[in-house]
Amino acid sequence: MLKKERMQRVLENGNGRQFLITDPAAVFYLTGKWIFPGERFLGLLIRQDRPPVMFVNELFQFEEDLGLKVIYYKDSDSINEILSAEIDRKRILGVDKNLPARFLIPMMDDGLASGFVNGSPAADYARAVKDEEEIALMRESSRINDLAMAEFRKLIVPEITEKEAAGQMLDIYRKLGAEAYSFDPIAAFGKNAADPHHMPDDTVLKEGDTVLFDVGCKYHSYCSDMTRTFFYKKEPSEEQKRIYNLVKAANEAAEEYVRPGVRLCDIDAKARDIITEGGYGKYFTHRLGHFIGTEDHEYGDVSSSFTDQVVPGNIFSIEPGIYHPVQGCRIEDLILVTDDGHEVLNHYPHEIQIID
Amino acid sequence: MLKKERMQRVLENGNGRQFLITDPAAVFYLTGKWIFPGERFLGLLIRQDRPPVMFVNELFQFEEDLGLKVIYYKDSDSINEILSAEIDRKRILGVDKNLPARFLIPMMDDGLASGFVNGSPAADYARAVKDEEEIALMRESSRINDLAMAEFRKLIVPEITEKEAAGQMLDIYRKLGAEAYSFDPIAAFGKNAADPHHMPDDTVLKEGDTVLFDVGCKYHSYCSDMTRTFFYKKEPSEEQKRIYNLVKAANEAAEEYVRPGVRLCDIDAKARDIITEGGYGKYFTHRLGHFIGTEDHEYGDVSSSFTDQVVPGNIFSIEPGIYHPVQGCRIEDLILVTDDGHEVLNHYPHEIQIID
Repeated sequence: MLKKERMQRVLENGNGRQFLITDPAAVFYLTGKWIFPGERFLGLLIRQDRPPVMFVNELFQFEEDLGLKVIYYKDSDSINEILSAEIDRKRILGVDKNLPARFLIPMMDDGLASGFVNGSPAADYARAVKDEEEIALMRESSRINDLAMAEFRKLIVPEITEKEAAGQMLDIYRKLGAEAYSFDPIAAFGKNAADPHHMPDDTVLKEGDTVLFDVGCKYHSYCSDMTRTFFYKKEPSEEQKRIYNLVKAANEAAEEYVRPGVRLCDIDAKARDIITEGGYGKYFTHRLGHFIGTEDHEYGDVSSSFTDQVVPGNIFSIEPGIYHPVQGCRIEDLILVTDDGHEVLNHYPHEIQIID
Repeated sequence: MLKKERMQRVLENGNGRQFLITDPAAVFYLTGKWIFPGERFLGLLIRQDRPPVMFVNELFQFEEDLGLKVIYYKDSDSINEILSAEIDRKRILGVDKNLPARFLIPMMDDGLASGFVNGSPAADYARAVKDEEEIALMRESSRINDLAMAEFRKLIVPEITEKEAAGQMLDIYRKLGAEAYSFDPIAAFGKNAADPHHMPDDTVLKEGDTVLFDVGCKYHSYCSDMTRTFFYKKEPSEEQKRIYNLVKAANEAAEEYVRPGVRLCDIDAKARDIITEGGYGKYFTHRLGHFIGTEDHEYGDVSSSFTDQVVPGNIFSIEPGIYHPVQGCRIEDLILVTDDGHEVLNHYPHEIQIID
């Protein structure tokens, strides 16, 4: 169903410009309807001066009334001809950042608008500020993720492989009420935990291993994302503990700092400074976090290059890590910026856990 | 390593135009190197008048010497500034059909070329004609697929589910020397075989079921793709046999017809006419086939709307199907156009097989 307030926010962000929204996640954000058109064209035209119109290939027809005009086209139709009846040729058109050249160049050649700009920031900025409905779903998605982590911990049994552990996670999520992964789960044992991009392989769990799970699910299309690092059957060494506790302190200091008006780059620095002062700065090789919603990674980073101030409704990850030969460790939560501070959406404990 | 002959063919197809190739599969085709840049920019600029140059984010640095100039850029660099030193501003630039607006619009705003066109056909037409190296790899990929089908047939045991059968296929492919799926395998039991897009689910195999496997692997990046339809524990009915044998006859008549100079639409018609004359035309709901190479679906269809003549080196699928309530059936092979006819790349038999 058309989300009028969200559409209004996109138009206001774009100073009243007309927009042709083509990213399926942005179309879902504005209409509540997922359509995956593959190589075919999908568009939602929004203008301040006229009701919105959606352009959909007839292969993807649907029954629901979304509260907006839907124009179905055939493979043999000219998309430009159909668009030209709805776009104001005398004004600039904001198009999606990912609109492929095979659609954009013909639109330009036919002069469908007086100019073409990347219109995605207007939608991206709107999507970065979650409304009440979205916040409720994000909270539930992370609540399920907390429960799932407690179940995943039980998968840590003698001689299991990373793939075998990861392979059982989807069923667990589904039993808890989630519909899908938000991304393919990471399970990393031993030295693999020191590779931030490790994908589960046939590595067999052995005594003394680190066990890192970076996992998330989707609940009514909204994503969760959390990382915990465990130890298997053996007390970690002093250096391992020092590394773990530095990551934990960095996570908690950054989370504690989040409130409306602070800058994303300063949140990153809060965590990074602690790890750097602890002597492991060069082993923290990525940004502190990313925005998240219906996509696991949405526009907006918690990094040194994002100087925007956070506002209530922003939801992003806080995920410091140290990737050192003696210990790979990451601790990640999602956090919501509230009117007067923040709410951490994950409640699974941060403390060192040794699994027996 | 730079494939000079392939590059020359792309340039000739484009009448000497300069091209900025950004599709990872097309970059691999010309350089032998896969780079998946995610949201970041990747480009290979080819011009008749200068050696090629590749533009790669420093995150994706590699050691090999590809025999061409590689320019690494940082996230903080301006891509346009780096491109502008290499592109001839006074000439038109052919860009990839999928180049996203977030790259294309700034290139236009900065006037990096005198005009911008969709340059993909030049590369697509070159890729549609496989050279000797590619043909050898395609042959081997399909040889593995034939061996794999014989193994998959053994997965048909009492009460197995589609997902359980499909879940064992990757290991079988790997044991046979393939590196990956070319697409997620389709296993469809019973009525599910009548849905051409069915994905494996928890359907349990029962006596009298049809068993359809549509499967393929990658060998040194080159794809195979084959479908066979079996019967489980019960002689098919007369109508089931009639449907099966119509599909078989359509497949074989179309394959038999393939030689240089025949039109793709006429190959499609060869199969379609047989099924239509048999009375099941409306249950053959898709094109006869698609081109294939390093991607499972490449540019080029065997369908009524493609009137191009085939040439030696073309490789495509021939996959007639009937999706009728009493019997879903598809029989698919890959076929290579040779100098004087064709070579079917799959050798797994077409005959009705009843599995006990």
